[in-house]
Amino acid sequence: MTTELLPNFFAGRWQTGTGAGIPLFDPVLGTELVRVSIAGVDLAEGFAFAREQGGQALRAMTYAQRAAMLGKIVEVLQAHRDEYYAISTANSGTTTRDSGVDIDGGIYTLGYFAKQGAALGEAKCLLDGQRIRMAKDPAYQTQHIQVPTEGVALFINAFNFPSWGLWEKAAPALLAGVPVIVKPATATAWLTQRMVKDVVDAGVVPAGALSVICGSSAGLMDQLQPFDVVSFTGSAETGRIIRSHPAVSERSVRCNIEADSINSALLAPHATEGSEAFNLLVTEVVREMTQKSGQKCTAIRRIFVPRAVYDAAAAAIAAKLCKTSVGNPRNESVRMGALVSSEQKAAVLAGLAQLKTEADVLFDGNTAALVDAADTSACVAPVLLGHRQPEQAQVLHSVEVFGPVATLMPYDSTEQALAMIRRGEGSLVCSVYSEDPAFTAQVSLQLAAWHGRVHAISPDVAALHSGHGNVMPMSLHGGPGRAGGGEELGGLRALNFYHRRAAIQGSSQALDLLAAQGVTLPL
Amino acid sequence: MTTELLPNFFAGRWQTGTGAGIPLFDPVLGTELVRVSIAGVDLAEGFAFAREQGGQALRAMTYAQRAAMLGKIVEVLQAHRDEYYAISTANSGTTTRDSGVDIDGGIYTLGYFAKQGAALGEAKCLLDGQRIRMAKDPAYQTQHIQVPTEGVALFINAFNFPSWGLWEKAAPALLAGVPVIVKPATATAWLTQRMVKDVVDAGVVPAGALSVICGSSAGLMDQLQPFDVVSFTGSAETGRIIRSHPAVSERSVRCNIEADSINSALLAPHATEGSEAFNLLVTEVVREMTQKSGQKCTAIRRIFVPRAVYDAAAAAIAAKLCKTSVGNPRNESVRMGALVSSEQKAAVLAGLAQLKTEADVLFDGNTAALVDAADTSACVAPVLLGHRQPEQAQVLHSVEVFGPVATLMPYDSTEQALAMIRRGEGSLVCSVYSEDPAFTAQVSLQLAAWHGRVHAISPDVAALHSGHGNVMPMSLHGGPGRAGGGEELGGLRALNFYHRRAAIQGSSQALDLLAAQGVTLPL
Repeated sequence: MTTELLPNFFAGRWQTGTGAGIPLFDPVLGTELVRVSIAGVDLAEGFAFAREQGGQALRAMTYAQRAAMLGKIVEVLQAHRDEYYAISTANSGTTTRDSGVDIDGGIYTLGYFAKQGAALGEAKCLLDGQRIRMAKDPAYQTQHIQVPTEGVALFINAFNFPSWGLWEKAAPALLAGVPVIVKPATATAWLTQRMVKDVVDAGVVPAGALSVICGSSAGLMDQLQPFDVVSFTGSAETGRIIRSHPAVSERSVRCNIEADSINSALLAPHATEGSEAFNLLVTEVVREMTQKSGQKCTAIRRIFVPRAVYDAAAAAIAAKLCKTSVGNPRNESVRMGALVSSEQKAAVLAGLAQLKTEADVLFDGNTAALVDAADTSACVAPVLLGHRQPEQAQVLHSVEVFGPVATLMPYDSTEQALAMIRRGEGSLVCSVYSEDPAFTAQVSLQLAAWHGRVHAISPDVAALHSGHGNVMPMSLHGGPGRAGGGEELGGLRALNFYHRRAAIQGSSQALDLLAAQGVTLPL
Repeated sequence: MTTELLPNFFAGRWQTGTGAGIPLFDPVLGTELVRVSIAGVDLAEGFAFAREQGGQALRAMTYAQRAAMLGKIVEVLQAHRDEYYAISTANSGTTTRDSGVDIDGGIYTLGYFAKQGAALGEAKCLLDGQRIRMAKDPAYQTQHIQVPTEGVALFINAFNFPSWGLWEKAAPALLAGVPVIVKPATATAWLTQRMVKDVVDAGVVPAGALSVICGSSAGLMDQLQPFDVVSFTGSAETGRIIRSHPAVSERSVRCNIEADSINSALLAPHATEGSEAFNLLVTEVVREMTQKSGQKCTAIRRIFVPRAVYDAAAAAIAAKLCKTSVGNPRNESVRMGALVSSEQKAAVLAGLAQLKTEADVLFDGNTAALVDAADTSACVAPVLLGHRQPEQAQVLHSVEVFGPVATLMPYDSTEQALAMIRRGEGSLVCSVYSEDPAFTAQVSLQLAAWHGRVHAISPDVAALHSGHGNVMPMSLHGGPGRAGGGEELGGLRALNFYHRRAAIQGSSQALDLLAAQGVTLPL
């Protein structure tokens, strides 16, 4: 039986690519689900349509109107949640809870920007800071403003978050007045395509404001012009290709990249076995290793604990991992589903072999049988590695294995722990587990230089905190160096990427009239 | 006679390169002045020294302490102003007034950041926005902060501003706590080297905080590591090479580029011959064409006037250009000196020939004799070009001639004028000449999408305004697309490039302690 060839929504209409297309599979059952193709579709036409029709329509709206549009998208998506969960189970191999991280996480983020954006009111531009006098006479001043960039936002997205990965970028882009073209990762493109289809069919966004193209990314970058932007999430190698493309290197297309990240968790030096901080770390490590089968860019990969509690931490983490049943997410006893594809399974096993050249295996869940899933499925159970002399390790600080794998490392002093964390060369997030606010404050200040986010957990926030790897819309997402150097979210800061900043120098009379059309971001 | 081989200040000591070096010339007299060489100098050692020694020393200081350091640099430079003017006359071929734009412009910018930085007080990090609740319970919140990046700032600078080009970047870098390595353009490296020498000799900056290397830029980018930043000013082609280098494309080294820009001046549609707006445009165009012999990235290259006043504008501009005596800046009757080198003269003449394939010559100062300068000098007189059907032009909207050359273009509607301005594909600055604040406000909002700065001139600011091409420290400098996509200055916004932003999520107790070490940027 031939599966459906998903149409692309591009240039304001549904367009089915030519050829057989690329099949998408169920990573647990191995069955083919749908196919995608962009072959034969006129890329130049679609980019021009989005840039011109979509851009003009969005910029004609105020921030409040665009925020209301986001609210309508939320309603459309909520009405189809059950279908999204079904697609997620089939195409991502995720449990209901893990599907929720992607689906409801995306809807929540949209809702957040709908609410925040409403507060911007009937403005057409952002006022950036106060007016500054440029002469003793106040008649001549400068006012910085931000206006929507007059181009498209191209999203080249990752396979692990087909829903959230779209909406966490599209929410600020659309709120800013910039049309979106999303190219989801092929392996899990179905959910992205379906969500865009529902939104388009509901008629809640202007023509050209939201497009989806599935399949090969060949030629997409060639379409970008100086006022366009591109936001990529995925491998460092593809990131390098995007950043080296003439669109970026010659035409200065603004580029946001989120790539590899070898995130850390740090248990405070005074923590003892069974202390609150110790227990919080253990719980969080297990959640990060197993949620979405460890396929989160923000997941904990390196765990730094005082040497005195190394063995205790290993035992406590292993004891919890041991209870994580792995297999077919349709079976209610399963706590962790599959990786998204057999390619990812192969990549994780290869990466694991690489880490094992340096590390000891402290726990390997793969000795237990899978639940309702064949060995040929893309299921991989959690593996906890360890290294007693982690300063001597190389691979452990430089190779990201994108699955349920983490490495425990003992440290002898805070300075040594920080030096090892820094060897990640820039990460998305580091979590700190401490009962001492002074330690947390001081170490956070140091970690801030190498991370986009520091997640500080203490007993007083144990029941409140949002999780190490959970990206909340109000906090920055991104990291320097190896993590790609990008900045996403961070509340309304996310609008910056989709705006152009300019200084307007002139007479206060003209600046008064300009200011009447703007609003200051409430950061 | 062999000229002096200028030593580099690198790795905390004076190091003379090996070999004969590259000679620097007097562009008017043709005589060799000094030589530069970086050959044989250990690049890795110098970068490591700056990154480690310089970075640690600077980060140990508060913002106020670093601001006071900038104030001391101002004092040192002011004490040596006469020597700088002499070097500028000899090596840049500039009149005293034009030398002042570079020398005093640099000192003024340093002074501005010294004053603004002092207001940041005894803080060690910047608080970025308000604390945001992440749960109903206020115990768990997120605070964005900015901390100095833990790397070096490499400046690869342009030949036209050996002083200002250094200090407009170094002032915010040093205030941010980031050590500076400057590689000036070889043709005019002498002034940069001398200024750094004076500052270093005066002992007002910590070891490793300020380094200068002169000569080839080969291998410099290879030294950059993930937390370093690079700021380049110069040609689009070199910009492309920098942005494609693995340091940027693979290691995410943050990169600021200011490249070509075909800046515009726009006379309002209702302006008549001899009106105040008309006269303000004429004065500004002449100043921009002749100041520093048109060697400013911000200079006016395209002049858009209503078709009805095209001939009148051509005549008025030509009448003023006619009075611009060109030649040896040592002769007091000379109003405009040389280009910086015979290479630049050749490039300007070649570019002029390219523009002439499309444009008419409305005025050519090169028919008059040079004052005290041979035809073999690097002097080129102002040339005003024109095109009666500028929508049909291609080269005029895409080729920047970096000399005293501009093109006058008539327009028939504001929309048509804006569409032509947009064909510059992103510029540093556009000036608007109007007596109607409503027109100014509306057109500024549109121009903001394609420019880093809009300079709006009206009769009420005629005596106050700072000039189309004059980059003031309180306003943003940079532009999208062809202009490189960079952002410099803009008051304390300039600190952003040298800081890393991070969200700190955690207990309010820890955030209180963190906040006590920070200060909010007063923008």
